[in-house]
Order: sequence, then C-alpha cells, then structure tokens
Amino acid sequence: MKKITLVALLLVGAKLTAQIVQSPSKQITLTFSLSDSGKPGYTVSYKSKPIVVQSNLGIKLKDGGDLVSAFSIDSIGYKTVNETWQPVLGEQSNIKNSYKEMTIALSQKTTSRRLNIIFRVFDEGVAFRYEFPKQPKLDYFIISDEKSEFNLTGNHKTFWLPGDFDSQEYVYTESKLSEINTDNIDKNNGIGLKSIAGKYVIQSPLMMKSTDNIYMNIFEAAVVNYPVMHLDLDVKTFGLTSRLVPNAISDKAYLQTPCVSPWRTIMISDDARTIVGSKMILNLNEPSKIEDTSWIKPMKYVGIWWEMHVGKSTWDYAGSQNAQNAADGQLKPTGKHGATTQNTKRYIDFAAKNGFDGVLVEGWNAGWEDWFGNWKEEVFDFTTPYPDFDLKEVNEYAKSKGVKMIMHHETSGSVANYERHLDRAMNLMKQYGYPAVKSGYVGRIIPRGEFHDGQTMVNHFNYVARRMAENKLMVNSHESSRPTGYSRTYPNYIAAEAARGNEFNAWSNGNPPMHETILPFTRLLGGPMDYTPGIFEMKMDTYLPDRKKSRFIQLWQNN
Amino acid sequence: MKKITLVALLLVGAKLTAQIVQSPSKQITLTFSLSDSGKPGYTVSYKSKPIVVQSNLGIKLKDGGDLVSAFSIDSIGYKTVNETWQPVLGEQSNIKNSYKEMTIALSQKTTSRRLNIIFRVFDEGVAFRYEFPKQPKLDYFIISDEKSEFNLTGNHKTFWLPGDFDSQEYVYTESKLSEINTDNIDKNNGIGLKSIAGKYVIQSPLMMKSTDNIYMNIFEAAVVNYPVMHLDLDVKTFGLTSRLVPNAISDKAYLQTPCVSPWRTIMISDDARTIVGSKMILNLNEPSKIEDTSWIKPMKYVGIWWEMHVGKSTWDYAGSQNAQNAADGQLKPTGKHGATTQNTKRYIDFAAKNGFDGVLVEGWNAGWEDWFGNWKEEVFDFTTPYPDFDLKEVNEYAKSKGVKMIMHHETSGSVANYERHLDRAMNLMKQYGYPAVKSGYVGRIIPRGEFHDGQTMVNHFNYVARRMAENKLMVNSHESSRPTGYSRTYPNYIAAEAARGNEFNAWSNGNPPMHETILPFTRLLGGPMDYTPGIFEMKMDTYLPDRKKSRFIQLWQNN
Repeated sequence: MKKITLVALLLVGAKLTAQIVQSPSKQITLTFSLSDSGKPGYTVSYKSKPIVVQSNLGIKLKDGGDLVSAFSIDSIGYKTVNETWQPVLGEQSNIKNSYKEMTIALSQKTTSRRLNIIFRVFDEGVAFRYEFPKQPKLDYFIISDEKSEFNLTGNHKTFWLPGDFDSQEYVYTESKLSEINTDNIDKNNGIGLKSIAGKYVIQSPLMMKSTDNIYMNIFEAAVVNYPVMHLDLDVKTFGLTSRLVPNAISDKAYLQTPCVSPWRTIMISDDARTIVGSKMILNLNEPSKIEDTSWIKPMKYVGIWWEMHVGKSTWDYAGSQNAQNAADGQLKPTGKHGATTQNTKRYIDFAAKNGFDGVLVEGWNAGWEDWFGNWKEEVFDFTTPYPDFDLKEVNEYAKSKGVKMIMHHETSGSVANYERHLDRAMNLMKQYGYPAVKSGYVGRIIPRGEFHDGQTMVNHFNYVARRMAENKLMVNSHESSRPTGYSRTYPNYIAAEAARGNEFNAWSNGNPPMHETILPFTRLLGGPMDYTPGIFEMKMDTYLPDRKKSRFIQLWQNN
Repeated sequence: MKKITLVALLLVGAKLTAQIVQSPSKQITLTFSLSDSGKPGYTVSYKSKPIVVQSNLGIKLKDGGDLVSAFSIDSIGYKTVNETWQPVLGEQSNIKNSYKEMTIALSQKTTSRRLNIIFRVFDEGVAFRYEFPKQPKLDYFIISDEKSEFNLTGNHKTFWLPGDFDSQEYVYTESKLSEINTDNIDKNNGIGLKSIAGKYVIQSPLMMKSTDNIYMNIFEAAVVNYPVMHLDLDVKTFGLTSRLVPNAISDKAYLQTPCVSPWRTIMISDDARTIVGSKMILNLNEPSKIEDTSWIKPMKYVGIWWEMHVGKSTWDYAGSQNAQNAADGQLKPTGKHGATTQNTKRYIDFAAKNGFDGVLVEGWNAGWEDWFGNWKEEVFDFTTPYPDFDLKEVNEYAKSKGVKMIMHHETSGSVANYERHLDRAMNLMKQYGYPAVKSGYVGRIIPRGEFHDGQTMVNHFNYVARRMAENKLMVNSHESSRPTGYSRTYPNYIAAEAARGNEFNAWSNGNPPMHETILPFTRLLGGPMDYTPGIFEMKMDTYLPDRKKSRFIQLWQNN
C-alpha cells in the first residue's frame, strides 16, 4: 500500500503568519515561523501541550556568510505519505511509514542563497532536515556549525550519556536536566579512550520524561556524509542545541549541493512503548540499495573472544601484548593463544551440536602483540594468520559441519591502514567463504585528529558497509558511531555495537541492570545491536582461577 | 669492492674535548662537541676554512621532555666504509660509496633517555642523522620539532625556492641570503596551491656559493616515515634551522624506537661539478629491496597530455570541466575529448614509427568534469574509462605495435580516495599489461589538514612505490614531495616531477633558462625527474588558433 498526496502552495510575500503541519492523528502539531530578522524557527506541541518552545534553526558556513537569518520564504509545499515497506531483517514483516510533510523554501536576498527546511510529522514524533538545493551561489561548501535548537519546557528526567566524540560505551545516568554535568560521572569505567566535549555536552539519542508523564526522545536519522550530532545543554533554560563533531581542523562537514543534512528527530508520546516500537528512524532512511538481498541472513554465533576477555587465553600468539618481544621477529608462543586451529574446531563442534550458525574467531591474525593504545598506524594487515591458525583447515572443517566462520577485523582505530587493506581483506573472506565480519575500532583514529563521530568516520563506516555489500558480505561493527537507520539502505550492515555491551562485565565495574532497560529507548532506535549476549554468571573460580574481576562466563565455555 | 673498518671507542666520562672526523681526502673536517649544559653541536670546515660554525642539534618531543640538552656522552664509535654498488638505473654502472662515520651515543641522566647522532663525512660533504635506539624510557614518541642548525659563515649567494609545504613548482630566485624574503616573489606564477610557511622559510635542497667561490648545498636523504625538512633562515646571522612540515594537528612525526631520522646533508666543494656529480644522497639510502629488478626499465614516451595543456583538446569527456553538467548523469561529448581510442591509436602509430617505448594517456578515465580546486574527496575511481576510450582495444593495438601503454592516476590530492582504490587500480593495470603509471597530486590533500610534504604524505608516496613494486609496476609521481634517494631502495619509483617542469611553458609566464641550469644542483640530487621534455617552440598559430599564452608545442604534434 502506498499513498502519497502532494500539495504545493506557492507564495510570493516574505512575511507570513506561522505555518502549521500536524501528525496524521492530529495529536502532534509543528509550527514553523520566520522572525522579523528572517530567522527560521519552530515549536512542537503534543495534545495541545507545548513540548518544544520557540527554537531557531540555522547553519553556519566557513566561507561566505551564514544560513541563519535574513531569510524570506519563497514557497511552502505539503505532502502526505502513507505507505508500508518490507524490511530485509527485523521483528516486523511490514513497516508502516505515515507522515505529513511541509517543505519551507527560504532564500537570502543579500547572498542569493537558498535553503529548504523539510518537516515531517509522524504520529510518534517530528523530524526535520536542512536541504541545500543546487544553486549558482552555493556549490561546494563547508559547514562550520549547525545551530538547531530544541528548547524544552521543563526540567525533565533524562537518561543521558556524556557527549564523547569517541565513545558511547558509558552507563546511562538518570537525572534531571538541571543536574547534568559530565564532570560528575565515574570516569573509572573501563573506557580506554574518552573525548568528552564539555560539562554540559550530552549524546543523542536522549530519552526524557516530563513531570506530567510525557516521554520525549531527541535523536537523528540518516547520518550520511555528515558528522554525528551531540547536544549542548543550557542547564538553566533546558535548551538543547546541536553540536556537530569536528574534524582535525575544526571543520564540521564538507558538502556539495544538492545535498541534505541528516534528520533531527523528536519522538513524543504519553506511552513509552510507542517510542520503543517506533520505526521512525528507519522510515527516515533511504530504501535498500541492494537489489538481491537473499544472501543477507542474521546468525546466532559463538566465538573465541570471551575467553580472552576473562583472561583464560590471549588474542596474541606470544601471549605478552608486547611488541618489543616481537621486534626481533621471534614470536615465542606461550600456549595461551586462543585462536588456534584446534580450539576453533572445538567451537565449530559446539556450534554444530547446539544449533549455532556461526563461529567468530578473534586473535586469528598477526599484530595483536602491539595493537592497543599507541596510535600506531600499521598494526594489522587483515590477511596474515598466526602460525597456529590454519585458515584452510579451519574453513574446510567448518564447512563440513555446516557452520559459517565469521571474520574479525580489529582496526585499532587505524582506519587509513584498514582502508588500504580492505580489498585484500575482503578477497581473503571470499576465498575461504566467510559471509560476515565483525569489525572493531578500539583506539584513537588515524587519520590523526579525527574522532569516531566525525564526518570522516561516518563516511568510513558507511563506505565499509557499501564495499562489503558489493562483495555480498555482512558487517557487524564495534566501536563505530551509533547507527541511525543506515541498515535500511544497506541491510548487510547487519549490526553494530556502539554502546556499552556485555563485555564490560568482564573487566570493569560492569553494567547495572538499569542499563539494559534504557537501551531499547535509545541506542536500539538506530538499528540492531551486537550486545554480545549469551553470557551468564557462573561460580567457576576453580575453572578460571586467575580471573579476578570477571563475574561472567559464556554458557558454552562450560560445555 | 667492499671495505668496512670498524673501530669502537668506549668512554665513561661526560666531559670530552671535541671529537673530530674527516673525509677520506682529509679536506672536510667535522667536529662534534657537547656544551657545558650538555647540548650537542658541530662545526664543519673545508680545506681549513669554516663552512658551518657552532650549530646545535636536538629534537623536541611532544610528551615527556626534549632531547636537546642535559646530555652526556656514553660512547663514540668510528667506522670507515669504502664500497661500490650497482644501481638498477642511472648514468653510472657503478657507484662509489666512501665515507668515515662517527656515532656519538648520548644519554640524559634525568630522563634515562638515549639518543645517538651519526655523522658521515664523504669527500663531497657531510651527513648526519638522529638515531633513537630501543630503550625502556622511549618507545612510541611524537616529534614536535627538530632543531638542527646550519650556521653559515657569510652572506652567500643562493638559488632558493620559498618554503612551501605543498609545492616546489617555483622558479629559483637568485639572491644573497640577506635578501631572501618570500613576500617578494611573483605569486602570479601558475601554481594553483600555495602554502608558504613564512617570509624567511625556504626549501632544501638549497644551493649556495660563497664570495670565496666555495659551493655548498644543504639537503636531506632517505626521508622515510618522517616529514620533509624546510629551512628557517635568520637573515642577519645567516643561520638556518630545520623546519619540519606539520600534520593536521601540528605534530611533526610519529615514531617508535628503534628508528632514525633522515640524513641532513651539507655538500661542499670548490668545484661546482662535484655537487652535480655526487651520489651522496643515493649512498645514504638503503639498498634495493626489490630482488628481481629485471622488469624495471625506463622508457621514452609520448602522450596525450600536452594537447590538453595548450587547449587543443580536453581531459574531460564533456569538455566543460563542469560537473554541474554531469550531475544529472548526462555527459554530453563535445568532440574535444583528447583520450579517445582513435586518437590514442594515432599516438601509438607515431610511437612505433619513431622509436618511442610508450604512450601515456591522460583523461582516459571518468571524473575530469570536476576534479580541480574543490577539495573534493570522491573524484576518480581509477578504473572507469570514458565511453570513447576502449581499454581492451587500445591495449591490444599497442601490443600489436610493440608499444607499452602508460597508465595515468590523477588523485587531485584526494589521497584517502586513491588509497581506497589502489588495489583495484593496480589490478586493472595488470589485466591490460600497463607496466607503469604516472600519478598526480594536484590540489589540497585529503585527509584534510595534511600537506604534500608532511609525514603522512611522505609515507603515502613511499607506500605507493612499495605496493607498485609488489605488483611489478613502475611509478612516476607528479606533485609529490621531492625525492631524497628512495629510488635506490625502490628502483621502480622511476621518476618524480616535484619541481617546476616544462608544462609551465604552456599556461604561465613560463620558465626562464636559468631555471634549467639550477635543477641539476638541487632537485636532481634526490633522483630522476620527469621534466616532460620533448617540447619545442613552433610557429603554428594557424594550427592552434585558439591558444593564446602557449609558446611551445610538442614535436610529435606536428607530425
């Protein structure tokens, strides 16, 4: 079912009364207005209650003036969409996409530049994006800042993460907006790389609840060729403003018209379940660009990785995590290396016997002696196995047991190095029949000066998804920027971590039960998460005598 | 013939009289000394005349203190080398490598850090480098500055280029040291991208002549995993200090012990021919790492490129250099595209008839509509030909005529994009039998914030040489950092441009005759140059009526 109604209303005057668009159910109302100085702004109400009060919208450019004020309205267009589509993966066979759209076409007389703001109002919330049409006075341009405001009406309760440009792997802090201060969170939290942007900078998705029991969530959708949006908070006025992640030289985004920003989303409901169940973020992304999706299949898998987390075995062959030992070319095996052919066969047997589709092996490839914490560029080559891991033997054995092997590409944040090797790494996967890869981005990014959440890295994560799709390979990225629905467009981007997962229960203070209850209202709105589940607490001190802080062990390890 | 004499003299005291090492001919004397505050320094004399007066040496680190002072001497080692080796390419079959070496092993008591300074004295000059031994207190480190001084004895005449981190494509200015000021050079010189670091920053190699007719040249050799060295000049004292090219976040070099800096070189002679003929720069590089070099062969070639420079045809298919025309996917050929199958066959015929080995074709691949000046990341894919260029037909025709085709990879400075595509680009070359590539780096570098002369780009140029070598492919890079002898180590790095070549005679004020006479004393010391010769002035206004500023035309175009 697909129904699109299009109404275009052309206007000539610059001065207009407020323009209104309502959700299909009429419960949410978005009002657009232009101030006397030509600043675009909006408000949102839900069941007649104000949710977002007067908030400005605008984009600052590095060169040639800002797209913030001095606008007049050229035209306003309306559209109604009511359709359903079929996702490749997910808990629903059919996804309903129903909204009212209003496009405000603006122009600045002084610069002859044009900017459109597109609003979509769904039954469960509001979305807007900036559209930069092809125009003579704006071709290539650099965004130095985005100033999208979300001015809230009260001191809501929130479940927030600090605005860290490199990590989302924090536990949620529950507090009122006025109590947010990233200085006060426990920094001894097991996160290796922290780049918190300020005391009052927080991440989206930001889940909130008002004193009159309205749930709100501020997030974004379709982050493509653009940095991640964090949020600057004014703890006195409860105003939020977009904070784009910079690149190495403090620019935010390099764009060329015609183009669009990601969608900024505000979900609203008096029933929290509406937010959990919403497909708004997926709906705001482009349909699948992969024609034949028959090869895209989620898998339950076991893997050689948890035994390294709990200290039973090591990722590296020499067991030392010390490249100085390897500098003379003499890797001396300690017998503690986890990713051996023999151990892998044991896991394959277990998977075959217990109905798991795949086996992941971490630490199969050379480089783990010195992979972490040194901003090292040439770490892994993604193709050279350790001497005790026989690629051919392992993959033939897995095939004979009907089990799929899952590749592992830890980049250690050295993305330049990974991109140089990606073709060769994918060729190896195809040679041995690996259908999927778990990738990792632990550590400071190379190109140096870039953050995990900047435009460069957003483009990298999306690039890998596209390149893997060209080769019919699935990807499950860890330490990536958090998903914003791109898995609708590239369904082979089958999962991401991008949150504090179960692994923290191995070697940090762990995750409180509340953490898991918040994730569906935040991280999971953007796409599937590899939470690395299947870990249960076992009293196994005799089995693993040397683990001290570890409190959990994977079910299968006890088999 | 190979003769190496090694004498190691171990010392225990910190305070030493000056240490001396002389050239085999005894005409050049280098004196090392440590100041009362433990600062290392040196002087150089030639035939008893001072050439470099007291000059300090040292390295500043980003973290944990500098390697500049508070040193004491742990030991001093001496070595004599007298050998010859056979280059793969070049004007000599045998190259003599004869020098005296002195290694000063230093340590800082306060930091427990060690630094070696290695001096080599040849008959035609002096070289020194920093060596960072493997040590407990220095593993990974970041160089924030190098302070190598070259304090000269007089107001020498020089032939200098401004210290531009992105380009060497200037004409030489002849002046006294005291008259150097980069503000005064003609900036309307046809160079698209200029990043001049300051009024008194100049490039090496720096050729000089003293009033008493001694020729001196300051340069560097074996720039590997390190940025290019420019020179800060004190116009009053005639002191020069190394100025390393920064990366996007102002760091200079990321290193891990054990490692070395490039060699800093000072050539000295009272006969200018000694400098032109010196193989010191090559001698200071590592021997070839390519075992089978039988496939490395220089070629004389003609090419479809000059006709674009003079405006007869275009690189791009649509003839507009305007991607806006192509944005709708409709490339409309104008008939002016140079790299057509038919035109290429004409060049192949000419090459076969006139004894040229190869034919270069620029503009064969999609992307030229919008390749220049916009800091655009995804420009070329290096594999997609324009519709009027038939890869198979062209290469089969060339093969039938005994002519080699030369590939062209213009990156437009978008190195991240090139590295992503390099494997596929090389596969295409191998598929069709291209033995060599001309690469280009016109424009601002991506990763953004990097310069052509920074460590990242030095590593890129060397990486491409190594990867091409793995695939038995030769490379001739344009707009790269200037060579410092790496073609000894990777002889498939067969040439580079890295200077103002003949092409400037097509569309700028051109090159004065003096320019060509200086290049052998400067740029050519580092390795072969693709000067794009074979261009002669022809009075052909009726043949090329629309060229206005062009004064030259290639010989073969008149055929």
